[in-house]
Amino acid sequence: MAKLALLGGSSVVQPSGASSVNPWAYRDLEEAFVRYTGARYALAVTSGTAALISALVAAGVGPGDEVLTVAHTWVASVAAILRCNAIPVFVDVDRRTFNMDIEDAARKISPQTRAVLPVDFFGLPANIPALMDLAASHGLLVVEDACQAGGAEIEGRKVGSMAHLTAFSFSGKPLSGEGGGVLTTNDRRLYEKAALAGQHPSFLSRHITDPDLRPYIDFGGRGDNLRPQKVLTDAVLHDLYSADLRINARIANCEFLTEKLSATGVIRPPHVPRGYKHVYHLYTCLLDIETAGLQRDLFLAALRAEGIPSTSYITHANFYFTEGGRPLAAGPIHLRTVFQEMDFYGKGCPFLCPHATRRPDYSRGSLPVTEWLADREFSLLQPSLSYPNGKKEMQQIVDAIHKVLDNAEELRTADPASFVGGAGRG
Amino acid sequence: MAKLALLGGSSVVQPSGASSVNPWAYRDLEEAFVRYTGARYALAVTSGTAALISALVAAGVGPGDEVLTVAHTWVASVAAILRCNAIPVFVDVDRRTFNMDIEDAARKISPQTRAVLPVDFFGLPANIPALMDLAASHGLLVVEDACQAGGAEIEGRKVGSMAHLTAFSFSGKPLSGEGGGVLTTNDRRLYEKAALAGQHPSFLSRHITDPDLRPYIDFGGRGDNLRPQKVLTDAVLHDLYSADLRINARIANCEFLTEKLSATGVIRPPHVPRGYKHVYHLYTCLLDIETAGLQRDLFLAALRAEGIPSTSYITHANFYFTEGGRPLAAGPIHLRTVFQEMDFYGKGCPFLCPHATRRPDYSRGSLPVTEWLADREFSLLQPSLSYPNGKKEMQQIVDAIHKVLDNAEELRTADPASFVGGAGRG
Repeated sequence: MAKLALLGGSSVVQPSGASSVNPWAYRDLEEAFVRYTGARYALAVTSGTAALISALVAAGVGPGDEVLTVAHTWVASVAAILRCNAIPVFVDVDRRTFNMDIEDAARKISPQTRAVLPVDFFGLPANIPALMDLAASHGLLVVEDACQAGGAEIEGRKVGSMAHLTAFSFSGKPLSGEGGGVLTTNDRRLYEKAALAGQHPSFLSRHITDPDLRPYIDFGGRGDNLRPQKVLTDAVLHDLYSADLRINARIANCEFLTEKLSATGVIRPPHVPRGYKHVYHLYTCLLDIETAGLQRDLFLAALRAEGIPSTSYITHANFYFTEGGRPLAAGPIHLRTVFQEMDFYGKGCPFLCPHATRRPDYSRGSLPVTEWLADREFSLLQPSLSYPNGKKEMQQIVDAIHKVLDNAEELRTADPASFVGGAGRG
Repeated sequence: MAKLALLGGSSVVQPSGASSVNPWAYRDLEEAFVRYTGARYALAVTSGTAALISALVAAGVGPGDEVLTVAHTWVASVAAILRCNAIPVFVDVDRRTFNMDIEDAARKISPQTRAVLPVDFFGLPANIPALMDLAASHGLLVVEDACQAGGAEIEGRKVGSMAHLTAFSFSGKPLSGEGGGVLTTNDRRLYEKAALAGQHPSFLSRHITDPDLRPYIDFGGRGDNLRPQKVLTDAVLHDLYSADLRINARIANCEFLTEKLSATGVIRPPHVPRGYKHVYHLYTCLLDIETAGLQRDLFLAALRAEGIPSTSYITHANFYFTEGGRPLAAGPIHLRTVFQEMDFYGKGCPFLCPHATRRPDYSRGSLPVTEWLADREFSLLQPSLSYPNGKKEMQQIVDAIHKVLDNAEELRTADPASFVGGAGRG
């Protein structure tokens, strides 16, 4: 009965302007990202947040589960946990690296802990090898938030190849500023489960091989739409070709700053442990406010008045986070409104989920180092650190910082709102 | 103390290649969409799914709440409800319009119902005026899923201006195929609450005016990242200029098909109620399988062998949903695995949420018209219906359909898998 077909189809013209879903459009980026990171599998998604959500879904994180993470991070690391109806348990950070404190992580593991979500904050990898050891001894999975750290390394291994699952972002990041995100893993089953978080049925029907998972294809897995558009993934792919060139130029600028700022005595430049490659999404220092005799926000107001793009990422959420030109107060994640109220998502979900076994502790004082850092850290923002800027511009930054520090006494009596680009605390 | 600032900043160069978050990049599309639909507010997001999620968050839908929707739809309408931890309650559809049956909707309202989510399926608006009346008499909000119906109208009013909240998609849709989505509303507070579903703190700090909502800015509202990239919104904006020209050319093609196919006696073309403008994302007909003496899947296999892009959208999820070239079985949403098992999201969430008051009914037979349609409907796919295709190509489609129908007797004994582009049922 092939006769009918053999009569010849009429082959109606498909106008090129009428695009349809092309579920394979982003395979090029995925393949390039596998080569770049050394991971076995890569999944392109709409954002770093979407990569984190996909990773947590792959890790089987659900209602009542606890996930260890840090409060010294961008909102996405924590929002992704809430998205899976799981409960963030905050671990304090290391005073030098600003990243997850391994000993505090070990202390906070409970029978409800399902995963550990360390953040490679500001571009410096967390201590992933130590966390993988810790996770192995407790049967946990490590979901690495490398959204700010694409291109970073530990002992020559690129982030993305070490943790069970790693999330990347390309929204204004050193690797690419074009938008979207990618998830990597070395485990085929985790890759397939991550795809079930939000890929198209047509994509899933080709990439899900596990017979336990295939029945869920017909609803697109969880049915979220986390698919990036080709116009985005093509732009990121283009950036990937020059990623290490650009990142290395940026590192050279930051190392110049570190050499010069170390000499101030009151500014502690970013600490980079031996064997680590920091990509400096932000260049984040500590201001020794006691020795400088200057509050951090006053210092920042003066620095911005000098034309240096800078912020307190944690305290003011970020540089753009302004109201009438003034940064709004935010602070570490555990102190923000959603966590203090535990009610924004409806009926106490997920914090006070009936499946949870204890009430989370988001009190002030619960994370001493995180809270101590919040009053002392400041960041130089990423555009000014990038190629084609070089030593000349870095020296301008150093000069401006010296100028502010040299005028500390005069500044102490000032109203920060009186500065150009003022920086009151909300 | 303005002295320091007046010394003149060093104004470090900002390289243009190093992009950062620009939270206002998509305002142009939003403003154009307000003009296009006549709605008061528009919010650009990453997808139609993201628009639906934002709308449901704005409507205050949360754990244990019920949302009325249809099982005769794409997965996104329902996934967005699950995303808010709410419970989909399926309403049957009208046999002629394929859209939500108003009387069945009225019957299924319970004390737990929070919102009604009708779908403008295939491009034909649901009966929004009747649903707005029903919602008003029960204190509910109407979230219109117009993802397939951008540009459609009722009595000269564009969809987007009538319901409390309306979601649009630009992923392979007649209005634009570029990707992303938009949410519209006429209510300022709903607009602000929708933005809290997933916009950036910097965007929120400028657009949230309600003092009750402002405290949540510091976590980006729910902290999801539903922000579209400018490269996407610019492409959609470009399409919007020619939207009605392209849609009207498409409608002329579809009306030509309707005139010709009505004459077959066994194919019932799309029904368009008086005063409605159907944009035909898909051109969906009913095959009278009893009169034709031909099963729908056999008919479709033969039609595709003739080169006509066509599918059963519900039964086979969509045209691309294939495995080894064969469409996989899917069926109406309530019969898919996630709903039959009620366990995929962890601990029975959200279906069997401890906050829910009854077990949802997703049994076969619970939606008689939806299930009846699933065996009889078929869709001509969107690219072939679009400009520059015209009457010549439409006549080719009509001829192919006649050819298949004329050979019905021979086809009846055939194995559909033997056709080019075969169409077995999984």
